[in-house]
Amino acid sequence: MVVDTGRSPYARLRPVAIAAVRLEDAFWAPRRRLLQDITLRQQYEQCELTGRLDNFRRAAGKLQIPFQGRYYNDSDVYKWLEAASFALAGEPDQTLEGLVDGVVAEIAAAQSPDGYLNTYFTFEREAERWTDLTTKHEMYCAGHLIQAAIAHHRVTGKRTLLNVAIRLADHICATFGPQARPGADGHEEIELAMVELSRETGDRRYVDAALFFLDQRGRQPPVIGGSPYHQDHLPVRRQHEIVGHAVRATYLACGMTDVAAETGDAGLLEALDHLWESAFGRKAYLTGGLGARWSGEAFGADYELPSERAYAETCAAIGGFMWNWRRLALGPGAPDGSSTGGTPARSPTNVSPLDGSPPGGDGAARGAAGGHFADWMETALYNGILSGLSLDGTEYFYQNPLADGGHHRRQPWFGTACCPPNIARLLLSLPGYCYSTSPEGLWVHLYAAGEVRAPLGAPQWAPLGAGALGSTATIRVETSYPWDGVIRLTVQTPPGQTPREPGGLFLRIPGWCEQARLTVNGVPAGADLRPGTYAELRREWRTGDVVELDLPMTVRRVVGHPRVTATHGRVALARGPLVYCLEGVDHPGVDVRDLELPSSAELRAERAAGLLGGVTIVRGQAVSAPPDDWDGRLYRRQGEDVQGGAARRPVPFVAIPYYAWANRAPGPMQVWMRAGD
Amino acid sequence: MVVDTGRSPYARLRPVAIAAVRLEDAFWAPRRRLLQDITLRQQYEQCELTGRLDNFRRAAGKLQIPFQGRYYNDSDVYKWLEAASFALAGEPDQTLEGLVDGVVAEIAAAQSPDGYLNTYFTFEREAERWTDLTTKHEMYCAGHLIQAAIAHHRVTGKRTLLNVAIRLADHICATFGPQARPGADGHEEIELAMVELSRETGDRRYVDAALFFLDQRGRQPPVIGGSPYHQDHLPVRRQHEIVGHAVRATYLACGMTDVAAETGDAGLLEALDHLWESAFGRKAYLTGGLGARWSGEAFGADYELPSERAYAETCAAIGGFMWNWRRLALGPGAPDGSSTGGTPARSPTNVSPLDGSPPGGDGAARGAAGGHFADWMETALYNGILSGLSLDGTEYFYQNPLADGGHHRRQPWFGTACCPPNIARLLLSLPGYCYSTSPEGLWVHLYAAGEVRAPLGAPQWAPLGAGALGSTATIRVETSYPWDGVIRLTVQTPPGQTPREPGGLFLRIPGWCEQARLTVNGVPAGADLRPGTYAELRREWRTGDVVELDLPMTVRRVVGHPRVTATHGRVALARGPLVYCLEGVDHPGVDVRDLELPSSAELRAERAAGLLGGVTIVRGQAVSAPPDDWDGRLYRRQGEDVQGGAARRPVPFVAIPYYAWANRAPGPMQVWMRAGD
Repeated sequence: MVVDTGRSPYARLRPVAIAAVRLEDAFWAPRRRLLQDITLRQQYEQCELTGRLDNFRRAAGKLQIPFQGRYYNDSDVYKWLEAASFALAGEPDQTLEGLVDGVVAEIAAAQSPDGYLNTYFTFEREAERWTDLTTKHEMYCAGHLIQAAIAHHRVTGKRTLLNVAIRLADHICATFGPQARPGADGHEEIELAMVELSRETGDRRYVDAALFFLDQRGRQPPVIGGSPYHQDHLPVRRQHEIVGHAVRATYLACGMTDVAAETGDAGLLEALDHLWESAFGRKAYLTGGLGARWSGEAFGADYELPSERAYAETCAAIGGFMWNWRRLALGPGAPDGSSTGGTPARSPTNVSPLDGSPPGGDGAARGAAGGHFADWMETALYNGILSGLSLDGTEYFYQNPLADGGHHRRQPWFGTACCPPNIARLLLSLPGYCYSTSPEGLWVHLYAAGEVRAPLGAPQWAPLGAGALGSTATIRVETSYPWDGVIRLTVQTPPGQTPREPGGLFLRIPGWCEQARLTVNGVPAGADLRPGTYAELRREWRTGDVVELDLPMTVRRVVGHPRVTATHGRVALARGPLVYCLEGVDHPGVDVRDLELPSSAELRAERAAGLLGGVTIVRGQAVSAPPDDWDGRLYRRQGEDVQGGAARRPVPFVAIPYYAWANRAPGPMQVWMRAGD
Repeated sequence: MVVDTGRSPYARLRPVAIAAVRLEDAFWAPRRRLLQDITLRQQYEQCELTGRLDNFRRAAGKLQIPFQGRYYNDSDVYKWLEAASFALAGEPDQTLEGLVDGVVAEIAAAQSPDGYLNTYFTFEREAERWTDLTTKHEMYCAGHLIQAAIAHHRVTGKRTLLNVAIRLADHICATFGPQARPGADGHEEIELAMVELSRETGDRRYVDAALFFLDQRGRQPPVIGGSPYHQDHLPVRRQHEIVGHAVRATYLACGMTDVAAETGDAGLLEALDHLWESAFGRKAYLTGGLGARWSGEAFGADYELPSERAYAETCAAIGGFMWNWRRLALGPGAPDGSSTGGTPARSPTNVSPLDGSPPGGDGAARGAAGGHFADWMETALYNGILSGLSLDGTEYFYQNPLADGGHHRRQPWFGTACCPPNIARLLLSLPGYCYSTSPEGLWVHLYAAGEVRAPLGAPQWAPLGAGALGSTATIRVETSYPWDGVIRLTVQTPPGQTPREPGGLFLRIPGWCEQARLTVNGVPAGADLRPGTYAELRREWRTGDVVELDLPMTVRRVVGHPRVTATHGRVALARGPLVYCLEGVDHPGVDVRDLELPSSAELRAERAAGLLGGVTIVRGQAVSAPPDDWDGRLYRRQGEDVQGGAARRPVPFVAIPYYAWANRAPGPMQVWMRAGD
């Protein structure tokens, strides 16, 4: 599992172990295979080539060479290790296991006797440890080590790396705290890692440490400089607008949510509601991308969402995904102190991406999972995150703009290489994000063909460990999602057994789907199928029961909020969870940025099996309106401006899924087309 | 005069001395009075308060204190001194003259025996002189000293500061050059200063130095780092796209133009044509603002011109003004080697701002002045530059966005305080930018009531010194420009004398004016009055001749190039040279960003004498379409989106000149309104 809320008193949803889920679909399974076989190897090689692994050997005294690269480079190794550990949850892979064991050993050998571990601050820099918390990422790196160690322990059962992480965590707890010195890291990460370490070890001190670090922010005088960039401008409980470095901001929100899941901290939860509305109601890209500004890699002002100049770092979209996942587990609003929820202190607006439905009714378990959180997870996953990886699994985007002139291309690596292993660890842990359980039953968040073993009912509701699959059902999922919205779930209860109690199955009705249909064994289910909620099926499940959910995928025209200047007078195409774009290579002789989409244009989805690894494209007729008659001018009198003038002409267009752009010949790309009459 | 092309072999236009021009209008005269009486004093005090003057006293050994502020702070004192010197060209002001003399003495005392002068690199930092040309601004500061010294010398006749500047220039020439070491400054400025020093002293070495510094850029290996930010990515002759830090880029273009005026360097001229088209055909704001990006204070990509997030530094708009002025003096294209022009090697597209006319015919002296250069000067002056100064003359904008949520306010000073003295020196030298002379006669670029003494004909065409006004005519200008486009020019030839030859008067027909009318002594002049050109009047001028030019100022709706995302589906209002905006304070209960301007809306100009120091406002009826029905969503399906829905309602609006915004209660501001049906 990826965030173990299984015993968290203030969480409604509990995770399903990665090993309990098999993705056997045509979309994710080959990608995950590629990630394991190609991407993880390529990233390992980059870690070797760039000295990231040598830095550990150096710290261990095995090499007499200078530190290489940047002071946060350890974190890339840790994220790679986390990704590789998740990969080991699948089919046995002895080569990968060997690499993992080797890296774990290098890391362990580099740890100082007192538990400190950061290869940059060794030898000549040992005296500088913990002297520049604002910029030097020591606790950020530690947090990633802890996350890697937890993944490694959960998947392999080995304690080698976990022991290293515990010693480092204990060193940090001894160094900072109410009885020790103040401090927090300029790049959040330690907070969420500490909470998860507490869950893994049962040691509550780590939650206390996370809370301590959260509450270090916004102090007067400031502990780490006081800047919005570091989310240090206000106490976290008073931060209502999401600001500053977008990865930092989303990781902070994750840490706040994690602490709240353990403590029910109403102040954190209230701030989180505001932050979520700020992020996903006013500052998120259609693709789930976050962080509009290059300057500071930061969130912009409300509705500041430029397309071509979008920063939208892959890691920030991942951070948003992680945050929504954590938030989803808590239920719709701030709980009233019980783990079964209740009237939230302040319910976040139920805002789904794309064309999400308006707020629905709360109170029922169905609505209580917060479909809007899962909607944004799905949106980011299929668009703003997946775009970060090339189809061949070897190149990465750091920024994910929504329009481009043709110069933005994926790169095999970066000096600051946070994004490559981040996307690897997310996609390799993806099975852990598809399902949850609760006392009411099994929740399906993300649809993908395969299998899940999990309890449908929960007569003996109890903490779920990785091995607690005894009384579980197996559900086979058949679907061509995300290309087709028909999902067929077949239930197999444990052999020789039928559930003694009615079980629940909660199926997400995506915010983009307004005409969902649901049957059980061919009979319409009569469930509430409002978009952005979960359809609830309660019954006595028997082996062979078939649930069929149809989420019709029409091609949608999406418009942006009127305050979003970048989308004003424009329209984007979407189908199912996918945002589409137009790419130059499909439009010879036309600049896609000159295309207008008439409101009457017919839009046809069409399977293109040989294109971009197999995609559904959208075809239609647009109008090319090149600015030929502008004579080099930038501005002119209104009325002269029939765009394109004599050069206006109808042209057929092809839209491809956004995630797949920049995998062919370079050229202009655009998500938001000009809307014609 | 401000750029003395009086003897430049490759310039067509020659300047008119500041002292030969009197601005006695209701617009500039009070502003210039305020600048002299309030702004210059306030800036002097800031230079004292912030240690900028103490840095000179320290360097002279008068104070034993640390250097204060940033390493480029000397330049603010120099620009203040340049501004104050220009002010002394007007009415006697003994207090100001005393301040000027005092500052000159402090500067002179701080100079090293070898001529070096930069107060940062003194004492403990003396050994670091010229060791970090890329970032430390030593030659940038030197350039501003040289410009201040030239202004001081021209206006006061005193050589005190000029001698200091010459010693520093000689030190630089001895330190850098083909026979000495390579080098260039990371912030251009020395180039244009060196050329002007050559003009002031007659010493050609300084032109050679300027050319040397220009050609240091873009070398392999790079001399100053090779970045586009510093315009060091390519040799200047191969720079066709304007990139990087916008102030640097425009100052570089000024230096290139200045060298070309002296040498006729075809390679520089060709590059300048490309750079100009890049800057003013694809990267300029409607206001004349330049530099779209906060990140790097830099030019963006083509058509990247966000409104709310515009950087548009005041200094960059000034740099653009300076560049256009220099370029205007050269004539329309690259000259063929004679000072009378000829077929240009490559004529820049004749692009005026606002709704400038398409390219007109060249060849005639009328077209040869390049009205589009003057159009952009005027646009920047009345909009993107003037907005940099508060109406009370004491606060400044660094950035000049075209939309704002209400938080962007002018400040009394900045840590990096380049803009305040820059706007002061420009506006205090404004008389020098209104007119030019050429062998053909007198050219009027900027219209303002007052008087100019200059030759109308030039039978004895000769270099014009400040005192060479013997055979000049006096022309009185009466106009309420920029509020009204009627301009009445009355000619007075020297007493007892009539011109022996026909004289020429060349009147700019702004690009925004399509219905100009021109009479001489009440008789239609029959001149070509195409917008973006100069109307030519040749005759034997006699005392009492009256020329009346009427430039009707209708309220114009302006649209942006289709590639400019920020202006798509939007319209801006302009009248005469002024861009208008809507400000929250005039629209209680309405957010101006929610207003749509119907295409049928009637627009009325109305004098508001008591408002904002007296302005002409534009009134009309818009539609308020607040996003009330979005329920916190960012995106939704097209068709649901009748913006404003039930809340749509007609509202009267008031538009004010853009330069005057943010002088009242804070609130949203917007230049580009949504265009309704």
